Amino acid sequence: MAHIIVEYTDNLKEQGDIQGLLKKINTVLIAQDGVFPTGGIRSRAIELKDYYIADGEGPDDAFVHVTFKMGGGRSETVKKAASDALFEMIEQHFAHIFEQRPLALSMERYEFGGAGTYKKNRIHDRYG
Amino acid sequence: MAHIIVEYTDNLKEQGDIQGLLKKINTVLIAQDGVFPTGGIRSRAIELKDYYIADGEGPDDAFVHVTFKMGGGRSETVKKAASDALFEMIEQHFAHIFEQRPLALSMERYEFGGAGTYKKNRIHDRYG
Amino acid sequence: MAHIIVEYTDNLKEQGDIQGLLKKINTVLIAQDGVFPTGGIRSRAIELKDYYIADGEGPDDAFVHVTFKMGGGRSETVKKAASDALFEMIEQHFAHIFEQRPLALSMERYEFGGAGTYKKNRIHDRYG
Repeated sequence: MAHIIVEYTDNLKEQGDIQGLLKKINTVLIAQDGVFPTGGIRSRAIELKDYYIADGEGPDDAFVHVTFKMGGGRSETVKKAASDALFEMIEQHFAHIFEQRPLALSMERYEFGGAGTYKKNRIHDRYG
Repeated sequence: MAHIIVEYTDNLKEQGDIQGLLKKINTVLIAQDGVFPTGGIRSRAIELKDYYIADGEGPDDAFVHVTFKMGGGRSETVKKAASDALFEMIEQHFAHIFEQRPLALSMERYEFGGAGTYKKNRIHDRYG
Repeated sequence: MAHIIVEYTDNLKEQGDIQGLLKKINTVLIAQDGVFPTGGIRSRAIELKDYYIADGEGPDDAFVHVTFKMGGGRSETVKKAASDALFEMIEQHFAHIFEQRPLALSMERYEFGGAGTYKKNRIHDRYG
């Protein structure tokens, strides 16, 4: 179970190709040798309309923050490999914007505890 | 203090009765013998408009992800009972959709640490 | 790296001056003697349109929930000072509403683990 939440400021909407980013996120995770079963990967983006960055003095400031959540039980090695690959792709995806304007990219990783995690998923059926 | 966040893909909006789901969530938590004081229960739903599921090959894929956050200090027994009851209700709520289309349901539990948690609540007054 | 997410029910939109609140949040964090570098502070608000509070019997019930996320490595003393200052400001910001109607304010603090946290930020350049 991999959940990826992309928060982005709406001043990136035109240039940011967010839908393309979501597709790349899933592609990166699918490429991790089965560590993240395809049917369990769910990416989404939240468009931020109200935000305040730093001291508010940069009218063109923008940010993207990615939360990468996954079920527990994977080794640090595979988690690090997936996270590195994700962030590298994110940097590349936004590289042309990063060169032009004040942009902040960040990503955090979060692991669900075993207890208290529930799932029931019919999308897996397709990949049986 | 119980906070429940329901993220759902917008292709569930018509069939999903999300407002009904939120009401049921609170009802389930109120029924937990006072473990979650009524005035502290706050459910909300986030409609996801941009998402990418699995390899993107399922045009009708949908998901619901519930984050159940609570203040610390409750026993594992009562936390498990509440979580089990919540997810069972969620499964039932979406059962008719689950049978028809590729749907993934999931829930995670999260406990606030004691330090760094703040609250001030006038809604409790009604239940004094 | 300080990320602040303000969830608020849309029935606070008119009275709540949410954009003003975000500015105050950043101002409070900037005032913490450099504990939170200015260029890394990112506040945003999420307007909640679907929610259910307590037993649903309070047509005018409202809530604000703030998630204060930061990178690891700061001492409990400075984290507590910043959190106390933030919540005190939030209470003041909403005081006039709190007196009038059933409102719940809450804040949680969350610290990113070191591993799995990534960042690349050009906004810092302005404060270099």
